[in-house]
This record gives sequence, C-alpha cells and structure tokens, in this order.
Amino acid sequence: MTQTHMAREVAEIPAAVARFLAQSGPAVQDAAQAMQALDPRLIVTVARGSSDHAATYLKYAVELMAGVPVASVGPSVASIYGRPLRLDGAVCVGISQSGQSPDIVEMMRAGRSGGALSVAITNFADSPMGAASNHCLPLQAGVEQSVAATKTFVVSVLAGLTLVAEWQQDNDLRRAIAALPDALEKALHLDWSPLAARLSRANSAYVLGRGPAFAIANECALKFKETCGLHAESYSAAEVLHGPAAIVQAQFPVLALGVADAALPHVITTAERLAAQGADVFLTGAAGKGVTQLPSVPDLHPLVAPLVLATGFYSFVEGLARRRGFDPDTPPHLRKVTETV
Amino acid sequence: MTQTHMAREVAEIPAAVARFLAQSGPAVQDAAQAMQALDPRLIVTVARGSSDHAATYLKYAVELMAGVPVASVGPSVASIYGRPLRLDGAVCVGISQSGQSPDIVEMMRAGRSGGALSVAITNFADSPMGAASNHCLPLQAGVEQSVAATKTFVVSVLAGLTLVAEWQQDNDLRRAIAALPDALEKALHLDWSPLAARLSRANSAYVLGRGPAFAIANECALKFKETCGLHAESYSAAEVLHGPAAIVQAQFPVLALGVADAALPHVITTAERLAAQGADVFLTGAAGKGVTQLPSVPDLHPLVAPLVLATGFYSFVEGLARRRGFDPDTPPHLRKVTETV
Repeated sequence: MTQTHMAREVAEIPAAVARFLAQSGPAVQDAAQAMQALDPRLIVTVARGSSDHAATYLKYAVELMAGVPVASVGPSVASIYGRPLRLDGAVCVGISQSGQSPDIVEMMRAGRSGGALSVAITNFADSPMGAASNHCLPLQAGVEQSVAATKTFVVSVLAGLTLVAEWQQDNDLRRAIAALPDALEKALHLDWSPLAARLSRANSAYVLGRGPAFAIANECALKFKETCGLHAESYSAAEVLHGPAAIVQAQFPVLALGVADAALPHVITTAERLAAQGADVFLTGAAGKGVTQLPSVPDLHPLVAPLVLATGFYSFVEGLARRRGFDPDTPPHLRKVTETV
Repeated sequence: MTQTHMAREVAEIPAAVARFLAQSGPAVQDAAQAMQALDPRLIVTVARGSSDHAATYLKYAVELMAGVPVASVGPSVASIYGRPLRLDGAVCVGISQSGQSPDIVEMMRAGRSGGALSVAITNFADSPMGAASNHCLPLQAGVEQSVAATKTFVVSVLAGLTLVAEWQQDNDLRRAIAALPDALEKALHLDWSPLAARLSRANSAYVLGRGPAFAIANECALKFKETCGLHAESYSAAEVLHGPAAIVQAQFPVLALGVADAALPHVITTAERLAAQGADVFLTGAAGKGVTQLPSVPDLHPLVAPLVLATGFYSFVEGLARRRGFDPDTPPHLRKVTETV
C-alpha cells in the first residue's frame, strides 16, 4: 500500500525540527528579549486540541525552569462570556496550527487588550492569530495534510522550549534542543510491538504521565481516539489513583510514559500498583514488577525526553491505526481546521 | 435493601449547604477581606480528584466575576520537582476533603513561602493543609463515609462561590447562594430515567459542559467511573470537536450539561452535531434536534445552576450504580483518603 500522509509527516519530524532551529532564531530572540524586559509574573496559554497539549508541555517547562506560574485560559471566557481578564505584566501565548479558530483569535486579542505581551505559535504567520499578536514564532513545518497533527505538534512544543531556553538563557536546555534531530530520528525506529498486539482489539485504555510527560499522555490519548477509534484517556500518574483507577480491572490496558526525571519512581510505583490490580501495563524507559517495558531513547534532558517519546509514539500509532482497520489520514467526523466559538 | 451511604449523603446536601451558610460567615469574611486588601493579579489552585473539579468551578467563577486569571498548579511541581513558584501578590487556594494528601500540603506550604496568601477549603480545619494555610474555610459537611465524594464536593464549590461573592461584594450571587438549599432539594427529585435506561449497559460515554458546567462534566465523568465502572470522559463542548468526536459513532452515549448561560446555544449546537453523527445525546435544561431532553431546576443564577445540576446528577448516578450491579459506597481499588506524592 502507499504510505499514508501521517506516516510521511511523522518521518519528516526530524527535518522539520532542524528547519525550525535553523530559521527561527531571530523571531525567538525578539520574543525572549521582550520577556526578559517584562519579567512576567504570569504566563497564560490559549489553545485547543493537540495545541493545548503543547501548551501543557510549555506550562511544565516554564514552571520548572523559570518558576513562573502558567494558567490555561479557556477561550470561551472572551469569546462567549465576553469577560476581559486583567493581564498586565503577563505573557499570553497562543498555539494553533492554522491560527484561524475564532475563539482562539478572540482570546488573543482580549489578552493583548488586557495588558499582556502576546506571542503566537502557528504554522501560518499571516493567519488571524499571527496578525493579532505582538510576536509570532512561525513553525515553518510545511503543509500538514493528515488531519491528525504530528509534525506541527512537535514543532509547537519545540517553539515553546526554545523560547524558554532563550528567555532563561539556559545552556543545558539549548544543547538538548540542538541535539533533538538525532534523538528524534532514533525515536522513529523504536519497537513497541507488544503494545500493538495488546491494543489491536482494545476498546478502552489509559495513558499516564507526570510533569511534561503528562502533556504527552494527553496527546497520545487524543491520537488513539482520532486515528484508532480507541477510547484512551490520559491522567497524571498521581491523579489516576484519586478515583479513575476504579475502572482498571483485569486486562485493562495502560500505557505509562516513564522518562528519566524526578517523577520516574512515582510513575513506576503507579504502574506497578495498576499491574497488581490486574491491568496490562506497558511502561517506557524503565522496568517495573509485573509491567511490560517498552524501549525509549536514553540519556536525554528531562525537558526534551517526553517530546522524543511523542515522536516514537506517532510512528507506533500510525501503524496501529492501519492494523485496526482505520485510515489515519481521515478520522471520522473531523476536519483539519476546526472553527469553534 | 438498606440505603447506601452515598444515597444518604446525597440527601444530606441541602442541609449541609444550609449549615455551611449559617456557620461559615466569619471565616469567609476574613478571607474575603484579605483578598480585597491584596487585590490579587492571580489565583492558583491546588487540588486532586473531585476537589480539583471544585477548583475548576472556582476558576470560572473568579475569571467571570473578577476578571482575575486562575492557574491550576500541579502539586508535583513542589512535591517532586522541588521547584518554588514566584507567587507574591497571588492567592493560593487548596481544596481537599481530608486535607491530608502530602503533595497537596507540600504545595500549599510552597505557595505560602512563594509569597501567596493561602486559603484552605477542607472538611478538617485541624488537618495538615488547614494548619499550613493563612485562612481556612471549614466545610462542616460532617463525616462522609462513601468513598465517592458528594456532599463535600458541593460544599467545596459553595465555599469557593461564597468567597468570590464576598470578595466581589456581588449581591446577585449572594442571593443565589442563599437560595441554594431550596434549589438543591428540588434537584434531588429530577427524573433522568431515559439516561439510566441508555447507560445501564454502556461501556463508554462522554460528558460535555462549558464554563462552570465543564467543571461539573469533569465530576460526572469521574463519578461514572468510580461508582458505575463506566469509562466516561469529560470534554468542553468546544474541545470535543477538536478531535475527540472521532470515536463518537452510532449509539455512543453523550450527556451534555446545558445550563441557562451565554454558552447554552453553543452546547446545544455541539449536542445536535453529535446526534447528527449518530450519537445518543441527552441534554439537560434545553431542547435540541435529535437529542433527548433531561429536566433541570429552572431559573437559577448561571454560577449556581451547574452546582444544582451536580446534585441532581449524584442522585441519578447512585441509582445507576446499583442498577449496574455496583455498590456505590465501595468502588474497586479506592480508599477514602488517597495519599500521593
């Protein structure tokens, strides 16, 4: 069979990342310098769908690197309820592949008039969102034909990470970002076939993560829905124990995203606990009692490791979709640009 | 059969609300005056499980009433990653029935040392969280024996609403809160039997809301898991169209929470769109093409209507749990106090 758009776009991720790194320097520097000058006490994010998962990743990067709290603002506060927020001294970051959804654009305008410095992360600098913002970081990811976003998600997260690294002038993170194309290339070739075998007929699943890997758990769960028709739901590896574990019975499939950071022991503990109550638990990058270990790319900075894992997951889920009889390029009932108000 | 703890505690909700209103005045006034004096630019919330849904409700109340952005902070930022956040001039609101989970207590301590005014909302004023905070609003909801929180959730939301009403000195909201016991009593007797018939054997479902009703959608989805073993997931009525609608095929059950506010036309539009793609959609408080209307208590303030709806839902889900063969008091694999780090 011919390669799907999704497979081709996933394979393009390392090149898209290299292109962003080569070309985005001046735009990122401008925005980072504006943030240094402002010294914000608050970042707010505005996004939906996969882009909102990129915003969650940015939240952890900002809180852990800069110690500045990040609030996700529901676009409806501006678009439906018409309530302006007081955002003087804040930075408002909007993330949208198309830059077109009216509610996102409206919230970015409201953020700017509420006093925030606004930064747009979008594939289209000339989109309404790009035009409504003080700064724009164009993804330059090229056309994405698959409805399920992959390369634009990865570059959206990258844009946020690059902005944080330059704002904070953190050399460790800068080096980790520069090494991303190689790590991402490796991630495309991880073998997760035990998970594919388990999920080939599943109806429900959980995906767990913590810290920035929680953002990736959100993205994995959405992709399972969009491309595989699988009702996967994401939880923080702590939150799942506060109630949601109730439906985890014998053979319930769980994908736990372990990355080498301070949260890893806690992710392993949760994975083992769910395995002990009968779940089929798959854990990346670490071993655990009663769980199946999946390979990951080792020795990465904790703020880039989850993004590398996402890329490996995309490669995996595209194959799983076809195995389950879905065309990953054309999820039922979805279009590429979703306009909500 | 004898009445379950959950049924008895749901029936106690109107009385618990009346007791909070009668007894909490001085504590709420103290906290509200401290907030007026501070004039915060940011509120951060710290909570897990049902309490985190109460925090989401508080977020909408604060953003819509006061125009102050609200950030939900993952407790792990303090408890695992050890990263202090800059929170001078902010208010840090922690919500926990028990006030005991170590990660929540640690984040509240970190918030206070980061410069925030801290407010604890808990059933136990002498708990570690209560002791670690500048102000404490005790729920006084009495002992809750069911693992699934009901009356403590309602009073937690109420405590937040009361704090906002007094901080903002809003007479409309004050009147709506004072009238809550009567409205909640009515909610206990709503007839949602068409939804019970549909869900008696379902495996998956969505619950949709927008604005403060989105917080209640989160709570409904968790209760479906805890008490009925049903994989229900919540989405904003806008967000669900950005991908998750892909798994909504013929006869997929959807509960859409409509309340009489500015978002209602958009909730109806989403409900009708999902019905048109074959879903079995149930909508509260409004009619829609192809959807089954469920009754709600009419003529309520938009910031209390979702809380009244939650109470009606609790009464409904307790019966559904028994119909599905579950004991709602003892969900599998859960304990009343979940301690995570």
